[in-house]
Amino acid sequence: MKIIESDFHAWMGEIQARLESALARLLPAAHIAPARLHEAMRYASLEGGKRVRPLLVFAAGELAAAAPERLEVAACAVELIHAYSLVHDDLPCMDNDVLRRGKPTVHVEFDQATALLAGDALQSAAFQLLADQRLAEDPRTQLEMVKTLAIAAGSRGMAGGQQIDLESTGKALTLPELEFMHIHKTGALIRAAVTLGAACGVIDSSRKNALDRYGKAMGLAFQVVDDVLDYDGSTSTLGKTAGKDSRQGKPTYVSTLGLARARELANELRAEALEALADLGERARRLAQLADFIVLRKF
Amino acid sequence: MKIIESDFHAWMGEIQARLESALARLLPAAHIAPARLHEAMRYASLEGGKRVRPLLVFAAGELAAAAPERLEVAACAVELIHAYSLVHDDLPCMDNDVLRRGKPTVHVEFDQATALLAGDALQSAAFQLLADQRLAEDPRTQLEMVKTLAIAAGSRGMAGGQQIDLESTGKALTLPELEFMHIHKTGALIRAAVTLGAACGVIDSSRKNALDRYGKAMGLAFQVVDDVLDYDGSTSTLGKTAGKDSRQGKPTYVSTLGLARARELANELRAEALEALADLGERARRLAQLADFIVLRKF
Repeated sequence: MKIIESDFHAWMGEIQARLESALARLLPAAHIAPARLHEAMRYASLEGGKRVRPLLVFAAGELAAAAPERLEVAACAVELIHAYSLVHDDLPCMDNDVLRRGKPTVHVEFDQATALLAGDALQSAAFQLLADQRLAEDPRTQLEMVKTLAIAAGSRGMAGGQQIDLESTGKALTLPELEFMHIHKTGALIRAAVTLGAACGVIDSSRKNALDRYGKAMGLAFQVVDDVLDYDGSTSTLGKTAGKDSRQGKPTYVSTLGLARARELANELRAEALEALADLGERARRLAQLADFIVLRKF
Repeated sequence: MKIIESDFHAWMGEIQARLESALARLLPAAHIAPARLHEAMRYASLEGGKRVRPLLVFAAGELAAAAPERLEVAACAVELIHAYSLVHDDLPCMDNDVLRRGKPTVHVEFDQATALLAGDALQSAAFQLLADQRLAEDPRTQLEMVKTLAIAAGSRGMAGGQQIDLESTGKALTLPELEFMHIHKTGALIRAAVTLGAACGVIDSSRKNALDRYGKAMGLAFQVVDDVLDYDGSTSTLGKTAGKDSRQGKPTYVSTLGLARARELANELRAEALEALADLGERARRLAQLADFIVLRKF
């Protein structure tokens, strides 16, 4: 097992802090009308999570020598899509969850209608950010970035994955079906994070393909580990309701493969991700460390 | 009262048909997985409404000599944002409506979770369309289009207007408060439709400003007329539940100003819109006809 170098944690903390302050600055202030909506949008986005997707944006951006000011905006856009999806997922008509990141979910803290609108407006805000200032050398590349995020978020990406998830509750899925679900539900946005980070800089097509293989493997790895942790972890460590998926009768990698094989699969996907990075040199270091971090995390 | 020339109705029918077939083509087919989500997205978008926003896109595009193939895509993007907003508005936690365009609303025909995701995915699809192919001479203009639509849809546009609407239920609003609500809720997207149509072609800044004055007046006029019709009309003519706003205790132009004054206001806004077009010549003809159509409509 590769040991994550100690500077990784410093780097991660720096990106997380940078993202937090960028989100705080880029989201409309809480006093701007409609204040309750803006409060809810900020509540849903700030002080949240490990920021895995933004970390991937920055790590991929390093490979493409992208300017941090650009990566910051792209990372915020991806994170706002993620934040909106959590708000809508937690609604009573979806997962009906009351706890997220150790705090009451948005519809509990505010109300359902405000949560619905806050999610909707966070999605719009993500696309506004991606179009608002120069993020790529060529504006056509930037339009590609908008398209990439839209596809990753939409019916053939994240939202589509959620729909498959809904329809799978109470069913046993085969491994290919489970993979299809997660490639959409979690994988698409993680893959987009990597693509968007690289698009902020300059990257040739062979490195781009290698990166995409990495992003694809990481997208799945992330979900496999999530399933293991949901099975294994406690609510207090996770900051969200543990064991929820199995109680809701949702198929997971653990229910489909068993715990031991799910853990193995996560490690195989990590190896696949690292393999994709093999020829990319020193600048792929953060991506490699993130692969380790995501697969070996305990929360 | 100006009489709408007979060729207007032919033009309108042509655009409506064109839009219908473009949406049918551009939305993912109903058999593509996740099929239920794609069915719901198509159900929410096809065979729907008067297509006022697309008509505005095409009318503004005519002024800027824009290619119809571009206008078609921009019009679909605006209409998908509108369609998504209706799906979410009709949900039980919002207006809780069961009838829309004479058909069961999406959450009644499908289920709440599918309706939520279909709305989410329609919003993503709108941005995907705006970024997918060349719509403007300069790609930077096209990025501006993405930004315009995102702002119009977001917390300082349509979604923000919905939030104000929610918070206003049961309150009497002053006219400026009511205007503030509708400039966001309905006005922002109507104004964006006009801006996007023009951006598909070439237009100088003085004509652009005139167009924006037109769009602003029409955005409000549309809502004033909607309130008059909601008060005056029957459910069968409207294809949606009539008298709903007043029963839900929502402030309207009729409740704030009275029926006669609301009607007068609609006509004043129409005059303002036509005044903005005064120097734009023959190519502004469709915009003028649309002002008449929107204000003088009975449904």
